[in-house]
Amino acid sequence: MMETVIKIACRDEKGLVHKITGVLFAKLLNVTQTNEFVDEPKDRFFMRVSFSGSTDLKSLTQEIEAVLPSDAKVEVIPPAKKRVLVCVTKEHHCLGDLLIKSQFEDMPFSIVGVVGNHAVLAPLCAQFSIPFTHVPAEGLTREAHEARLRLIIDAANPDLIVLAKYMRILTPEFASAYLGKMINIHHSFLPAFVGANPYQQAFQRGVKIIGATAHFVTDDLDEGPIICQDVVSVNHSYDAKQMSKAGKEVEKSVLAKALQLVLEDRVFIHENKTILFD
Amino acid sequence: MMETVIKIACRDEKGLVHKITGVLFAKLLNVTQTNEFVDEPKDRFFMRVSFSGSTDLKSLTQEIEAVLPSDAKVEVIPPAKKRVLVCVTKEHHCLGDLLIKSQFEDMPFSIVGVVGNHAVLAPLCAQFSIPFTHVPAEGLTREAHEARLRLIIDAANPDLIVLAKYMRILTPEFASAYLGKMINIHHSFLPAFVGANPYQQAFQRGVKIIGATAHFVTDDLDEGPIICQDVVSVNHSYDAKQMSKAGKEVEKSVLAKALQLVLEDRVFIHENKTILFD
Amino acid sequence: MMETVIKIACRDEKGLVHKITGVLFAKLLNVTQTNEFVDEPKDRFFMRVSFSGSTDLKSLTQEIEAVLPSDAKVEVIPPAKKRVLVCVTKEHHCLGDLLIKSQFEDMPFSIVGVVGNHAVLAPLCAQFSIPFTHVPAEGLTREAHEARLRLIIDAANPDLIVLAKYMRILTPEFASAYLGKMINIHHSFLPAFVGANPYQQAFQRGVKIIGATAHFVTDDLDEGPIICQDVVSVNHSYDAKQMSKAGKEVEKSVLAKALQLVLEDRVFIHENKTILFD
Amino acid sequence: MMETVIKIACRDEKGLVHKITGVLFAKLLNVTQTNEFVDEPKDRFFMRVSFSGSTDLKSLTQEIEAVLPSDAKVEVIPPAKKRVLVCVTKEHHCLGDLLIKSQFEDMPFSIVGVVGNHAVLAPLCAQFSIPFTHVPAEGLTREAHEARLRLIIDAANPDLIVLAKYMRILTPEFASAYLGKMINIHHSFLPAFVGANPYQQAFQRGVKIIGATAHFVTDDLDEGPIICQDVVSVNHSYDAKQMSKAGKEVEKSVLAKALQLVLEDRVFIHENKTILFD
Repeated sequence: MMETVIKIACRDEKGLVHKITGVLFAKLLNVTQTNEFVDEPKDRFFMRVSFSGSTDLKSLTQEIEAVLPSDAKVEVIPPAKKRVLVCVTKEHHCLGDLLIKSQFEDMPFSIVGVVGNHAVLAPLCAQFSIPFTHVPAEGLTREAHEARLRLIIDAANPDLIVLAKYMRILTPEFASAYLGKMINIHHSFLPAFVGANPYQQAFQRGVKIIGATAHFVTDDLDEGPIICQDVVSVNHSYDAKQMSKAGKEVEKSVLAKALQLVLEDRVFIHENKTILFD
Repeated sequence: MMETVIKIACRDEKGLVHKITGVLFAKLLNVTQTNEFVDEPKDRFFMRVSFSGSTDLKSLTQEIEAVLPSDAKVEVIPPAKKRVLVCVTKEHHCLGDLLIKSQFEDMPFSIVGVVGNHAVLAPLCAQFSIPFTHVPAEGLTREAHEARLRLIIDAANPDLIVLAKYMRILTPEFASAYLGKMINIHHSFLPAFVGANPYQQAFQRGVKIIGATAHFVTDDLDEGPIICQDVVSVNHSYDAKQMSKAGKEVEKSVLAKALQLVLEDRVFIHENKTILFD
Repeated sequence: MMETVIKIACRDEKGLVHKITGVLFAKLLNVTQTNEFVDEPKDRFFMRVSFSGSTDLKSLTQEIEAVLPSDAKVEVIPPAKKRVLVCVTKEHHCLGDLLIKSQFEDMPFSIVGVVGNHAVLAPLCAQFSIPFTHVPAEGLTREAHEARLRLIIDAANPDLIVLAKYMRILTPEFASAYLGKMINIHHSFLPAFVGANPYQQAFQRGVKIIGATAHFVTDDLDEGPIICQDVVSVNHSYDAKQMSKAGKEVEKSVLAKALQLVLEDRVFIHENKTILFD
Repeated sequence: MMETVIKIACRDEKGLVHKITGVLFAKLLNVTQTNEFVDEPKDRFFMRVSFSGSTDLKSLTQEIEAVLPSDAKVEVIPPAKKRVLVCVTKEHHCLGDLLIKSQFEDMPFSIVGVVGNHAVLAPLCAQFSIPFTHVPAEGLTREAHEARLRLIIDAANPDLIVLAKYMRILTPEFASAYLGKMINIHHSFLPAFVGANPYQQAFQRGVKIIGATAHFVTDDLDEGPIICQDVVSVNHSYDAKQMSKAGKEVEKSVLAKALQLVLEDRVFIHENKTILFD
């Protein structure tokens, strides 16, 4: 998993794969995986290449850019654990799973800190020796609360922000500040049951399957690019509370799966969608 | 599967199961399965009992009613294949599956006829020697078209009407006329993507899972009690057409599963939800 | 969830449900759920009843027994968290999930201790203030090692023993000593890939789906009554290590689901199978 | 879907993708999809390329072969419906699904004929105007029966043979004669329950999930390269017959999915495994 990754996105044209692999071949890099996708209607080309071994990344980037259209976006990402900051409210299930995965290095990341608008999860973080910061929202405007949040986030300067059941609505400004760097787990099968109390909505509607959705956060609430979704069956005997309990397991696994993909640089954001090279 | 079924719904009170099973025990019926469910907030009791062997059904019904609250609804349903009328438009996948299941008696039903607002599926019905009636909508008001439809349906007097990708919006009057007797397969994971072109909506939204929903038809479009749902994974390489193709297999299996449950009298409608005793 | 549960298993005969519910009705107990199943070929009757409120459990048991065949096994289980002892080797994923669920009371149980034949998971237990006992197997016969294990288990006197990736083969004597009280998570979709290295076996065979199985431990290795199973898709790009990684998530969720059912007294062991009233 | 497909398999070496795409770029072909996979332990390279538009396929093949290692296997497959022969015994569910899919061109294939060792499915084929040949096995040695089968198969000269619940054991000679051209649907989740009566075996074992497996037929019974697998949940109330009924739906969908992949030339056979570029 821990290899150097090249991510390329640009206008599509003939010969891109040939030209890009030509650069890699000239350097005799040991390519371990390549994936390409062309969005034909949008005329966009996406490619992910991973390789082991070392080379000068700056010149590699320049040589690849030299063979691509001028609008090309090229990222060359050396192997490294990503630094993740987690935002929570009161629910422990996603955070607990992430804390264990971080401690045992189940995924290539380390949790640099946890921020909560309530303090109930501080002891759990302490058990894992992870700094927890309580940023209460009481008596603050949304903007004022987010300003405090941003101070902590920017001080930690994480590669990625994970909203692990962070139950506050974000301002467009906050979302925009971390565009493409912040993922959220939504406790419903989007676009079903957007907004508050999705399990109560699901119960009211009498659905037979509930789900969870991990997505990038944008300024449009619950409308960000979807990374992963999964579902679980329920039946008439479930009340909203039992649906919520069943849903927690799915939320946990969907968030973990999405995070794994993002940590391995397998996710491209393409307008309001994602391209996954898994 | 082909046993006599008793369906009971009434206000909940203590001792109902004892009293009902007392009637069955007195008759020494060979009970093969019993299911009960109590909706406590709504204070409603639901029970399904199946038994083999024969008894006088009229007196059985009366004796059960005698031990129940006055609001009790008791159905005693002798073993018999149900007579099903199918409504279609142009898509063949659900109809084809039903025609084969009917011919080979995979489920306890027989298709008494197929009605289409287009004629393209007439030859398929002919292959199975099932009468097909073409009721074109061209140049007719919705009401006028449904009037012709109702003549055919009422002449066939089916136990159940299956909308197998019948792509016309129904008037509340039409839906009400067959309340609890008409099921529809909707090509999305309700309540996601209600209305037209759900696969186009799903593609636009960039979801990673699509689904299908079988539900009873009510006067509220796409809002009827859900019987079954299922999903299938898709990815960024699927366009709306491919999603539709993938969805067809799920539509087919979800409709078949829901129909099986209804044919076996395992489904109770409870307000806008269903209770399934499977 | 925390209600008094009655579990009944006996030879089948007509009128059992009527007689049993008669006892409950006479006491005007507030029955919240009842489930019955009859294994007709084996002529066995199984019933689970849950009720809220209090009554004299000893007389309740006796009155129920009085209306049942002489071979009847009646358990009346008052609401209480079950005391669980966990056995581990080196893998942390199942243990970590259980420690969090125990601490936050996600399920009605508390972990009274963890025993490991290796010490690597001692620090994790310490983080949760759960006593960990290291029982190394080096230089001991299987019998001698199990003798030490049994001293610890019997001192803790748990209601249930969970083998959370405990990677040692048990003697029939050890298994028999805790029959019906010990559940294991097997890292394959039994009966596929019994024995050692199931993921290596799965990789060699080139399967497209892998799974996990939670089962009661019997003296017949990997042949105990299955409680829960689930699967996850893999493809040609997975090596045995990646299959193992993917499998861990399923192992975790399958074990949790099975444990939940057992903790809620919803599982009957019937010969080499289980009956689940979920 | 209907594009020209290039399938390449050879010893891995650096620069293969660059060299292959160089040939395609020189011809300015409109490449619609490319997939590559390297089995590093086995040092094997696999690539699938699809393109629209026309070019001289013979010279294309030669030019690609010219840049590859000497052991390379290159297939250039022009867009065309594949001609499929189906073998059956008595069960109709898979055949019925294939007949409908063939008639409505749901997949790029046409059924050129059906062969059965029993005659019960002849009328169904007649409904679809597909020739059915009855080849009874009574009083014949396995070899003699297969000899007659081979006469019919070879006369039809199909691109692909589908064993759609053909319930006879094949001789290694027969299997070898159609290696890589014959797929079978096995009614279990291989390698669980190999051999006869898998549903009876599954019932005896008390599994909670059953499945189906589509695989290429080799001379090693039930051990051929797996293409697709899927599962469905069952519970304690299912007897072997009900498991079989539930399994039929999965058999049908798994076979259809596998066939679709093979028809689109997305499947590579690699020793006893498959590589799927879907």
